[in-house]
Amino acid sequence: MASTKYTICVVGGTGAEGGGLALRWARHGHDVVIGSRDGEKARTAARELNGLLGTEAIRGVESRDGVQFAEIVVLAVPFSGQMSTVESLKDALQGKILIDVTVPLVPPKVSRVQLPESDSCVVAVQSLLGDQVRVVSAFQNVSAHKLKHLDTHIECDVLVASDDKDARQIGIQLAADAGLRGIDAGALANSVVAESLTSALIWINRTYKVPDAGIRITGLPI
Amino acid sequence: MASTKYTICVVGGTGAEGGGLALRWARHGHDVVIGSRDGEKARTAARELNGLLGTEAIRGVESRDGVQFAEIVVLAVPFSGQMSTVESLKDALQGKILIDVTVPLVPPKVSRVQLPESDSCVVAVQSLLGDQVRVVSAFQNVSAHKLKHLDTHIECDVLVASDDKDARQIGIQLAADAGLRGIDAGALANSVVAESLTSALIWINRTYKVPDAGIRITGLPI
Repeated sequence: MASTKYTICVVGGTGAEGGGLALRWARHGHDVVIGSRDGEKARTAARELNGLLGTEAIRGVESRDGVQFAEIVVLAVPFSGQMSTVESLKDALQGKILIDVTVPLVPPKVSRVQLPESDSCVVAVQSLLGDQVRVVSAFQNVSAHKLKHLDTHIECDVLVASDDKDARQIGIQLAADAGLRGIDAGALANSVVAESLTSALIWINRTYKVPDAGIRITGLPI
Repeated sequence: MASTKYTICVVGGTGAEGGGLALRWARHGHDVVIGSRDGEKARTAARELNGLLGTEAIRGVESRDGVQFAEIVVLAVPFSGQMSTVESLKDALQGKILIDVTVPLVPPKVSRVQLPESDSCVVAVQSLLGDQVRVVSAFQNVSAHKLKHLDTHIECDVLVASDDKDARQIGIQLAADAGLRGIDAGALANSVVAESLTSALIWINRTYKVPDAGIRITGLPI
């Protein structure tokens, strides 16, 4: 069965996590642009990704143009810029699916869980955007540098949470299209699990001296 | 290397999770009592556990007596009774290690993460008890009924969090003594991961129609 192809804009695709996802989705055949406030920066990053890809599949654009182009928008910016970015794109995002990858890390203690007042920073984004944007939480726990190595098998599941069942399924498909196993993790409130887990994984990486601890859900038939 | 043997009181050992842990630790050779507010109820539950064990190793006692007896106290009561139980045992707990297994489930929506105001209900217990009690968070994600099947290999890691490094190591040892892999998950604040994960696992069990989804940390050399 051929899987659906989407138009995707990765806002913050100039960063490691967003760039890695853009790369894997473009290779899969999705129509991918990466967005930045600075269009020139986005074009430079796209050229680098295309170098890894060996095609000219990925374009770099200003975020607002990218959001208008895409059916699915992926937010992969640092926590400190999450809310202002979403606020600035609020109108353009209406009617779309937003996959939010943000982890609420608060330097310098990034290996300690420090949840925002709303508990989940992705739930806070859903509240800000209103119910005409279907927000999905996913990809918080996946190693950015492994995503960029296209032929690396990544031993990490993706917990996919959303209040919209169809959007959750699309998140699970996009995990598969990036070479990962997506797991239906339930309501958007359950995003707290993935948001907090990253700090624990950073701690585990340091304590056990490993580069990329991840998680697997066990006991599944899939 | 012979591992250290402890005196352990499982408060709430009359329940499934606490009873399962008591069983596995007693089999390993720890000196285990299960505690309940109602001593008679504890004795009845101990008889049942000893039936499964084939020895008379486990004793049932009133919680307060059990706490006084034990070096390590394990709290395995429902969330609704967690704070009142800890409050009632506060004096007896001073100087001891408390391993808190509590998951902040709020019926009826137990498959949705609903964190308490303090984010972590185990951090709230540490605050209540003060720094003369070393509180450890562990065992929130392990299937109670699998614990009771003594010969079942359980495909689930135990995230062990505490602000006390030595207490964390004891938690990791007790996971191993129950046949599980304990993972150093960092500061007690990181208890949020395990506390929230249980709701996601309940969701996953229902969605994928499996009895006991669990987690594994991947990428470790251990």
